[in-house]
Amino acid sequence: MTDVDYCVIGAGFAGLTAALRLKQAGRSVALLEARDRLGGRTFTEVRADGSWIDRGGAWIGPGQDRIRALMTEFGISSYQQFTEGEALLVVDGKRHRYEGTIPWTMSPWAALNLGTVLLELGHMCKAIPLERPWAAKHADKWDRMSLAHWLDSNALSKPARELLETAIAGLYTSDGSEVSLLFALYQMASGGGPGFVLGVKDGAQDARPVGGMGAISGAMAARMSDAIHLSQPVRRIDQDDDGVTVRSDEMTVRARRVIVAVPLAIASQIRYEPMLPVDRSFLHQRMPSGSILKIAAVYDEPFWRGDGLTGQSAAPGSPATITIDACTDTARPGILCVITEGPIARRIGRLDPAERRRAVLGSLAERFGDKASFPVDYVEQDWSVERYSGGGMLSHAPTGVLTQFGPALRAPCGRVHWAGTESSAVMCGWVDGAVRSGERAASEVLQQETVTAADGLATER
Amino acid sequence: MTDVDYCVIGAGFAGLTAALRLKQAGRSVALLEARDRLGGRTFTEVRADGSWIDRGGAWIGPGQDRIRALMTEFGISSYQQFTEGEALLVVDGKRHRYEGTIPWTMSPWAALNLGTVLLELGHMCKAIPLERPWAAKHADKWDRMSLAHWLDSNALSKPARELLETAIAGLYTSDGSEVSLLFALYQMASGGGPGFVLGVKDGAQDARPVGGMGAISGAMAARMSDAIHLSQPVRRIDQDDDGVTVRSDEMTVRARRVIVAVPLAIASQIRYEPMLPVDRSFLHQRMPSGSILKIAAVYDEPFWRGDGLTGQSAAPGSPATITIDACTDTARPGILCVITEGPIARRIGRLDPAERRRAVLGSLAERFGDKASFPVDYVEQDWSVERYSGGGMLSHAPTGVLTQFGPALRAPCGRVHWAGTESSAVMCGWVDGAVRSGERAASEVLQQETVTAADGLATER
Repeated sequence: MTDVDYCVIGAGFAGLTAALRLKQAGRSVALLEARDRLGGRTFTEVRADGSWIDRGGAWIGPGQDRIRALMTEFGISSYQQFTEGEALLVVDGKRHRYEGTIPWTMSPWAALNLGTVLLELGHMCKAIPLERPWAAKHADKWDRMSLAHWLDSNALSKPARELLETAIAGLYTSDGSEVSLLFALYQMASGGGPGFVLGVKDGAQDARPVGGMGAISGAMAARMSDAIHLSQPVRRIDQDDDGVTVRSDEMTVRARRVIVAVPLAIASQIRYEPMLPVDRSFLHQRMPSGSILKIAAVYDEPFWRGDGLTGQSAAPGSPATITIDACTDTARPGILCVITEGPIARRIGRLDPAERRRAVLGSLAERFGDKASFPVDYVEQDWSVERYSGGGMLSHAPTGVLTQFGPALRAPCGRVHWAGTESSAVMCGWVDGAVRSGERAASEVLQQETVTAADGLATER
Repeated sequence: MTDVDYCVIGAGFAGLTAALRLKQAGRSVALLEARDRLGGRTFTEVRADGSWIDRGGAWIGPGQDRIRALMTEFGISSYQQFTEGEALLVVDGKRHRYEGTIPWTMSPWAALNLGTVLLELGHMCKAIPLERPWAAKHADKWDRMSLAHWLDSNALSKPARELLETAIAGLYTSDGSEVSLLFALYQMASGGGPGFVLGVKDGAQDARPVGGMGAISGAMAARMSDAIHLSQPVRRIDQDDDGVTVRSDEMTVRARRVIVAVPLAIASQIRYEPMLPVDRSFLHQRMPSGSILKIAAVYDEPFWRGDGLTGQSAAPGSPATITIDACTDTARPGILCVITEGPIARRIGRLDPAERRRAVLGSLAERFGDKASFPVDYVEQDWSVERYSGGGMLSHAPTGVLTQFGPALRAPCGRVHWAGTESSAVMCGWVDGAVRSGERAASEVLQQETVTAADGLATER
């Protein structure tokens, strides 16, 4: 039996931050992680040559102040995402080179339609109160409608519609038909609107930490290594009047309160005694994760840069749907990151590895030339088969869920508190949101000490 | 270690039927049930006076041939649902008495609108191929749209809209905003269309077994009592080349194959080694259960019958949303069944029991007169807090789920086979569908014996 002030479940950024802030406040903590590694939905692999690959969450952008604060705290610097040159777009089999956010060359009508839809989405995002998206004026209407249905009605140009499915539904790593329009608006609004979400420079893909996300999580963990217990999937949480008992297969932790910092679908696999309130247990059944395949193709050098290309590309429907330059700050080796999401990720996830590699590299070669066919290294990460993520990268809300169950995202259930990027009103879905949620949950439990102390005082009097 | 031919998980009608058919085929079976009772989402309470209350699934109707066959097999007779007299409808605070399916008295426009919508739904249902609803001509379009959104666009009369939400969204025990239009059409079509689903006489509420559903499940269980193990929630299923190992906290069962016959959200809480294929594990995250509160108010006699009423009533938004006569075949005592579903069920589920009783009986008194205020017995069943149902009565598919993951509802995953009413193409959502799914799963595993034997033969030759 491990006896501590607080127990934290999940060593992704939410759990690591919660544990760190509690340790810094002088409390004893046990942080239980199911996997044999840190990072949750981030996962940095350091290569023999000192370069690194972020197999999960990787980027940071303006407004992501809490992850920035952590980086400052641990002396981790950042570098700008490479953006010099032109991006590529493949629609209807045609390859377009363009600069900026809108690929004007594809067709004036498609580009205009795309621009109008993005403006309209931005406008709708402004009507979402981040702390209470279910209270938006049109919340009921927007929550009855899937994102795909709204796009069908608004993106009338086929290439524009396909690009939007790739860019926006792709965010939720699920088909647009699965995602509530209200949830999509809320999630985009929590980052500052579609411009931020889809943007590279000054957007969500603006910069990266030197050493990758693992440099930050590693530094946090080093500060509290005695508190961290890997390979301890939690099976059960019991609450009583005095505290909680948290059990993995091998450990039993007794604490005053517990912070559960894992994706919703994973939280649903823990047994709670007594049962959670209905709204929370129903929420656990209602926010699924999606599929994302993130592949790093490593070359001796970023040859695309020499061709005047940023490395950024989009090809709706292709097995290499999106690419982006993922070199380290030294720009050697050349790393091209391939991201495929939603239904296509599931489809190519079913191929055998050799077939999949051939399909992916074939697509890259069509876009970037023959050199793309011969990487010196090729690293795949399929988040759909990560048992303790339940999919990646962000749990989404289907229609009708946010308006009915949204408040349960953050509301503590007795001595059980909730963290995880999905519970953050700001930067929901990004690593920064995870950090914020961890800090919020740590404050919540510390706040309860004051309440309990005041109660004690009142009783004594 | 219990060594059997086959293991079945869940002693609802799906699991009981699967186990029974396998036993009858001469195979040894271990049936593990998490609860300390049989029946799953059916639950019959026998009262001291010999009358019974069905706290869960209760009715049978034409076309439900497999539950009928079981009843014949075990010599259990049925009796007709009482329907003599008028039904009640309360809309906009006004109480209407009517006969038939459509309450014409509420307003000609509302009644016409209601009738038109039901006709249109019936028409759409005919376009659904039951075995493959995702292959319907308009499947993609219908699966991108929530039932609520479709009703908003088609039921323009407010009272008609409210009645349809109560009657149709109510079926899924969730808000209409949560349910895919395609799923709703498929589910209704699997019963024979909206006329059957909503109908009493000749519809889904046509008759009841004498002794309640428990008479059937009890008789099935008596035939194989050595095979049934109660209070054994299954935590883990391991597959290897030769068979499966199924573990509860206390038992380990070794079998050739396992049939999992529990609701989707409950199946998701079992740990599978190796992991299930992505489509199935994603499905587990994507078909939530709803909320239903089923209350029996017991009186000395069915006094409403004397007033020329059937006992059937609907009052959208009321804490006693729907009522129906639930007397036994002797008509003594008088039992009025109150059904409240979806958001209202969650809301009144949060009241303290005395408050809830007052609200429910108050509503009944407004509808049926003062006598309704003084039941001799009052029995509540809140399916939202049944840990091993995860809610009631039927798991629904949100938008985008059936078209993408529908085939995974029935596809076996190696040695793991799936049963449960949600996996039945015919009578999906009814007890009859559960029985069919159990028979289908039993056939599947027996079929595999032939395949395996043929393989063995081929190898020998």
